Amino acid sequence: MSPTSATWIAADWGTTHLRVWAMSSSGTVLAQATSDDGMGRLTRDGFAPALDRLTADWPRVPVIACGMVGSRQGWVEAAYAAVPCPPLADDLTAAGDRTHIIPGLKQTAPADVMRGEETQVAGFLALNPGWDGVICLPGTHTKWAHVSAGEVVSFQTAMTGDLFAAITGHTVLRHSTAAGWDDAGFLLGVDEALSHPERLATRLFSLRAEGLLNALPDATARARLSGLLIGAELAATRAYWLGQQIAVIGAGTLAGLYVAALGAQAAPATQVNADRATLAGLTAAHRRWKDRP
Amino acid sequence: MSPTSATWIAADWGTTHLRVWAMSSSGTVLAQATSDDGMGRLTRDGFAPALDRLTADWPRVPVIACGMVGSRQGWVEAAYAAVPCPPLADDLTAAGDRTHIIPGLKQTAPADVMRGEETQVAGFLALNPGWDGVICLPGTHTKWAHVSAGEVVSFQTAMTGDLFAAITGHTVLRHSTAAGWDDAGFLLGVDEALSHPERLATRLFSLRAEGLLNALPDATARARLSGLLIGAELAATRAYWLGQQIAVIGAGTLAGLYVAALGAQAAPATQVNADRATLAGLTAAHRRWKDRP
Repeated sequence: MSPTSATWIAADWGTTHLRVWAMSSSGTVLAQATSDDGMGRLTRDGFAPALDRLTADWPRVPVIACGMVGSRQGWVEAAYAAVPCPPLADDLTAAGDRTHIIPGLKQTAPADVMRGEETQVAGFLALNPGWDGVICLPGTHTKWAHVSAGEVVSFQTAMTGDLFAAITGHTVLRHSTAAGWDDAGFLLGVDEALSHPERLATRLFSLRAEGLLNALPDATARARLSGLLIGAELAATRAYWLGQQIAVIGAGTLAGLYVAALGAQAAPATQVNADRATLAGLTAAHRRWKDRP
Repeated sequence: MSPTSATWIAADWGTTHLRVWAMSSSGTVLAQATSDDGMGRLTRDGFAPALDRLTADWPRVPVIACGMVGSRQGWVEAAYAAVPCPPLADDLTAAGDRTHIIPGLKQTAPADVMRGEETQVAGFLALNPGWDGVICLPGTHTKWAHVSAGEVVSFQTAMTGDLFAAITGHTVLRHSTAAGWDDAGFLLGVDEALSHPERLATRLFSLRAEGLLNALPDATARARLSGLLIGAELAATRAYWLGQQIAVIGAGTLAGLYVAALGAQAAPATQVNADRATLAGLTAAHRRWKDRP
C-alpha cells in the first residue's frame, strides 16, 4: 500500500496537533502523518502551508477536515449547526483550494459548543447504525451527547480535564498531588462527589489537610481529586446517562476512568476507539461530499 | 507617639507579607511597617534578619507573631492545637531570642487546618465577649469557624479564591473572564450554584459557550464565575451558617461579596475589619504571654 494511490485525505485538525491519513477510494488507510501545527500556533495564512508540508509526498487530493481548524481563530470559520440535528451538517465549509471543513455543533440553551467531537459521533453512528443512547467523549473538555434516531438531540460540556490541570498545577494542591495514582482513592472521590455534590468546595482543601495531618500520599490525593472532579461531572450529567445505553469514545487512561466511574454507579459503558470513530466520521463526511448533487 | 516607647511588637507573618506594629503598654499602635518578606520567600535562617531589618528603628522588645511563620516550612513549627479548643493556645512557640508564635488549629475529621485566622477569631471574641455563632474569614482559602462559649467547636476551609485564580488564569475561561464586574451576574451565579450545586461542572463551560454564542460580556462571565464558586462554597458550608449569627472578617471587596451572597440567602452577616481583629488577637495573646505564671 502506497500513498501514491490516495484519492482523498482525512484530517483531524485540533488546537495542538494536525493528524492526516492518506485514504484509498475503498476507505483503506494508505499512510498517516502528524505534526504540531495545531490551530493554536497558526495564523490564518499558515494553515495551507502546514497542510502542504505534512502531505508533500502524497497526491494533491481533496482534504476533509474536522476540529478547531473551523473555529473563529482557525483557517476559515465553519458556522455551527444547531442541535437537534444530525452530527454531520449537509454542507462543508471550503478552505484554500482543496480542503473542506466539517462544522461544529451548537446548542442555544444551555449554551454549549463542540468542534471535532461531532465527527466522532458521526463515525460511531456509521459503525453502529440505529444506535440510541448517550455518547461520552472524554478530554480537556468532556462532551456528553444524547443521540437518538441519527441526530444529536442535545449535549453538555464539562471542563473537567482543564480544571484538573489548573488545580494540580496552580493551586495549593500542587504540593499534594504531584504524581502517582491509586484506584481505590479515585473511586472514593467519585463516590464522595456523587453522594454529596454540594460538598465539593470543602472536599478539595481536605486533600491538602489530610496530607499535612495524616500523611495522605500524593498518589492517593491526586487520584481522589480526579475522582472528585469526574464525580462532580457525573452528578451534573446524571440526567444524561442514568438508565441510558452509554458509549465512551476515547483512547487509553482517561476514557478508562470514565468507564470505571460509571461502572461503579451500575451504569455499564462500552469503550470505543477514538481514532476509529474519527476516521469513520471523516469517511462518512467524504462520501457525502463526493456524492453531493 | 513614637515607637521608642514600644513595649512589644505585634506581627502578622503570612506566606507573602510580614506586617508589624510597635505597641505601647496600653495597647496603642505607635508605628507600623510592612515588607514582602513572607514565609514563602524565606529560608529558615532568614526569618530573624527579616524581622530585625523591618524593626531596626524600634526598641528590641518581645514579638508576638501569628500566621504561616509557624508552619513546617516557616521559622519554627508551632504544633497545631486540636479543636474543640479556645482560639488561642495556652503556650506560644519560641523562635529566635524574642519571638513567640501563636499555634494554628487543626481538626481531625474532616481533616482541616488554619494558621493566622485563629488569631483573628480570638481578636473578634476579645472585642465581642460571649459572642456565639459562625465566623467566615474570606481569603485565598476561606475559613468557616463555628464558635461557642469561647471555643472554636469546628471549622471548614474552601479554597475558593485559589480556584478562582487558577480558573481565570489557567483554563479556557481565561479567554472569557479577563476583567470587569457585574453585580447582577455575581448574584445569578450564587443562586445557580445554591439551587443546583450538582450542576457546577457543566455551568462553568457554559460561561465560555455563552461568550461564543451570545456575546456574554467578560465582566458578566467573570462575576458569574465568582458567584458560582462562592455559591458552591455556601452550599458546602450551609450547615455552618444556616440560622446562625454570622460575622465576616475581612477587608474590602472579597468580604463584601460574601456578605452580599449571604444576604441574598436571607442570612444577614456583620462585616468586621480584619486588621482590627488581628491586632486584638495578637494583643490578647501578648497579655496572656506577659501574665503567664
